Amino acid sequence: MTQEEVKRIIRDVPDFPKKGILFKDLTTAFINPGCMHWFEQELTDAYKDKGITKVLGIESRGFVVAPIVANNMNVGFVPVRKKGKLPAEVVEQSYDKEYGTDTIEVHKDSLTADDVVMIHDDLLATGGTMAAAVELVRKFGVKKIYVSFLVELDELNGRRAFADDVEVLSLIHY
Amino acid sequence: MTQEEVKRIIRDVPDFPKKGILFKDLTTAFINPGCMHWFEQELTDAYKDKGITKVLGIESRGFVVAPIVANNMNVGFVPVRKKGKLPAEVVEQSYDKEYGTDTIEVHKDSLTADDVVMIHDDLLATGGTMAAAVELVRKFGVKKIYVSFLVELDELNGRRAFADDVEVLSLIHY
Repeated sequence: MTQEEVKRIIRDVPDFPKKGILFKDLTTAFINPGCMHWFEQELTDAYKDKGITKVLGIESRGFVVAPIVANNMNVGFVPVRKKGKLPAEVVEQSYDKEYGTDTIEVHKDSLTADDVVMIHDDLLATGGTMAAAVELVRKFGVKKIYVSFLVELDELNGRRAFADDVEVLSLIHY
Repeated sequence: MTQEEVKRIIRDVPDFPKKGILFKDLTTAFINPGCMHWFEQELTDAYKDKGITKVLGIESRGFVVAPIVANNMNVGFVPVRKKGKLPAEVVEQSYDKEYGTDTIEVHKDSLTADDVVMIHDDLLATGGTMAAAVELVRKFGVKKIYVSFLVELDELNGRRAFADDVEVLSLIHY
């Protein structure tokens, strides 16, 4: 499987979640074992020599590929969840959305200042949720933060949401 | 890693999500690479000779391990999502919850009558959501349905939610 082949398999769904948005539907890639192996291999190759100690995935589409990469690198998987979903003590971060505010959380005992972290989500659009996840992880004083996406929508310039000390990788660009 | 070791690593959180419930918190297993490899190996061993053609995971905790098993068996991963989250045409199934009704969906083009399906979620309590997922998958006329959980709470007798033609496996019992 090549990048171009995966790119053709990802489906465009017009007017989702609302009129005028062309949604990149990754479920057509998740159902294709060749695409999944390609995501797995590309991300593992990109991060295996970085000294990553924890892979974080953002609920819920970020949960699909992040644990696969964590397993490959033999490090732990940490879920970043919406407010109220994690049962033990959490650290939280709120952020502005188009309408109102959202809050994401991670368990307080899931990260330490010794960690090197890769945070994963499926798609980079404006970058609001991932920027909040980066700020949340900074509260733990970790050594280094990497950020990865399967897909980046270049025209939305979501990369601007991240400071220079955060390394951003997207496997596929539109 | 052994079953008993994994069982000790899964955390009890009292009074979550409400007073009187002792919550089995799997995040302490997800952050432990040994536990994740154990889940991966046990489920892959259990299903690799069953002719499984699709692995379904139930949003969102079922997304953590299901794609790993799908990848290992070289078959597609299909997300079962809450209403309104999937962008293309869906088949849906509603079910009663303690308060009110919930609806889950899968993409209409994600399954066919030729499929042999394994549906995965993290935990079997009363079995309401998984029973709805089974009914949803039956609408496609698939050949066979297997159901797997990481953890089963035996005293709640959630297995009664499934007809005899559905094979149920849980890796850990409490």
